Amino acid sequence: MRAVGVDVGGTKVAAALVDAGGTLHDQVRVDSPAEDGEAMAAAIAGVISTLCAGADAGSVVGVAAAGNVDLYGVMRYAPNIAWRDFPLRERLEAATGRAVRVENDANAAAWAEYRLGAAREASSMVMLTLGTGVGGGVVLEGGLVRGWQGLGGELGHLVLSEGGPPCACGNHGDLESLASGTAIARAAQEAIDAGAAPASSPLAGLAAVDGEDVTAAALAGDAFARGILSRTGFWLGRGIGSLVNALDPEIVVVGGGAMAAGELLLDAARASAEETLTGRGHRTMPAVVPAALGNAAGIVGAALLAGGDAP
Amino acid sequence: MRAVGVDVGGTKVAAALVDAGGTLHDQVRVDSPAEDGEAMAAAIAGVISTLCAGADAGSVVGVAAAGNVDLYGVMRYAPNIAWRDFPLRERLEAATGRAVRVENDANAAAWAEYRLGAAREASSMVMLTLGTGVGGGVVLEGGLVRGWQGLGGELGHLVLSEGGPPCACGNHGDLESLASGTAIARAAQEAIDAGAAPASSPLAGLAAVDGEDVTAAALAGDAFARGILSRTGFWLGRGIGSLVNALDPEIVVVGGGAMAAGELLLDAARASAEETLTGRGHRTMPAVVPAALGNAAGIVGAALLAGGDAP
Repeated sequence: MRAVGVDVGGTKVAAALVDAGGTLHDQVRVDSPAEDGEAMAAAIAGVISTLCAGADAGSVVGVAAAGNVDLYGVMRYAPNIAWRDFPLRERLEAATGRAVRVENDANAAAWAEYRLGAAREASSMVMLTLGTGVGGGVVLEGGLVRGWQGLGGELGHLVLSEGGPPCACGNHGDLESLASGTAIARAAQEAIDAGAAPASSPLAGLAAVDGEDVTAAALAGDAFARGILSRTGFWLGRGIGSLVNALDPEIVVVGGGAMAAGELLLDAARASAEETLTGRGHRTMPAVVPAALGNAAGIVGAALLAGGDAP
Repeated sequence: MRAVGVDVGGTKVAAALVDAGGTLHDQVRVDSPAEDGEAMAAAIAGVISTLCAGADAGSVVGVAAAGNVDLYGVMRYAPNIAWRDFPLRERLEAATGRAVRVENDANAAAWAEYRLGAAREASSMVMLTLGTGVGGGVVLEGGLVRGWQGLGGELGHLVLSEGGPPCACGNHGDLESLASGTAIARAAQEAIDAGAAPASSPLAGLAAVDGEDVTAAALAGDAFARGILSRTGFWLGRGIGSLVNALDPEIVVVGGGAMAAGELLLDAARASAEETLTGRGHRTMPAVVPAALGNAAGIVGAALLAGGDAP
């Protein structure tokens, strides 16, 4: 069986036919008309129809989209797309004549990592996706935690440091504001502006630093950049520790663009998480590992969820 | 069917036969020899044997105990009892000849509220128990979230304000350090010591204030005491908001001794929780309600869990 998987973001719509092993076939990608909710739905429907034309007649369709998707496939709120209480599933089903399942993109990615990726041998997992924002997904007892309204898994919005940096969601000092790619860039820029970057750092001369600059400098050995990532990892670990206290998962998977920094983030995160655990010294700290499926996780997870490979 | 339910704390062991409706029969209570782990187990076994003597031969036994209990009934760490990696279930079964299930006390209380109490009509719930510390329990998809090792539900140890007050667990600024009965007393004492309590407040003259003093003054209308509870409710709400972002439960139940303050805590908590939610204005805030079963919740939940009324 092949299912159609679609990953919808603020800049592009990426899709493919996905086989049971998670391999992508017939990949398609179009730009997102993110400022127009109906045009956005039409673009997604077009991609689905293109892929279905080359697929089995009975293909199922899964869509992973960035935002608060409820159990009925209504996009309650999308931070980067002009959708507010938008009946996305209904629009896509009407336009394509196919049954469509819509899920939050980070939840879909978590399901893919659980079934086929870094958590495939675990009974339960928490996943964090560190990109422009921080997405999350939780799998317990073999099932994705969707929640009462379907809005669960928003792990980027755990408040860790009340009064900390502002988050796009309106909170201050939540995980997203402290451990996203955006947060890495902000922390570096603030330190540079405060004169804390030594002249020897490649970041010292930059007028506008982004997360990739910090990671590149850190991977090249720059101590200033490594300090920024270590502090980011500290906050990531506080979030992970809080989640392990609450849910005691077998494994924690960390993905997203910011994970280009790899162990420079995770080493600090593990230490910070472990010192946050209740009863530390009398329990096993879950493994904290990088995601395995990369950018394809959203497409694969959407397809698997649509295919009935989920509760 | 009647099951034996036992609630084990640092100062006393309380137990009863519990019927399917949650009514307690033949209540027993003994002091806890908390400083001696083996004596503590013997005291619990004695209570169980006493109750079983008056019960059906096939009675099942459930024990709710304060601490990190794993899936095998080993007490990994008990903050107020001399148990470290102590095989509690094994000891109790050997001493009584009965099958015994051991669960964390706040998890047991949450299960009781879910089955018979404030959450009995909800599909999913988060419970917080505000006493000397803060306990927690999570029910999703009809089942108690126990976790990989059985250590889930430690919701008092979500870090909310890094660098905040110290917690007995070693963290700073976690929910327990900010919203327990102990935290209420500390916040009041610090304000009094700083001269912030007006002479008109009944708390101003106290050398050592406790949480009950604050609640009594607040219920009598004292604005200073109400301010302390309102600030405590703010932190409680930050914790609740973070948990709703993560898990999207249908209802949040708050119990424990500090809930004598009732709506003076919950009003502030609801407001603080709602302003923490992602996509606020496009979702339904879960009800935040007081627990219904009072001190019996631990006994009832332990009995229900032992009776097979659980996953």
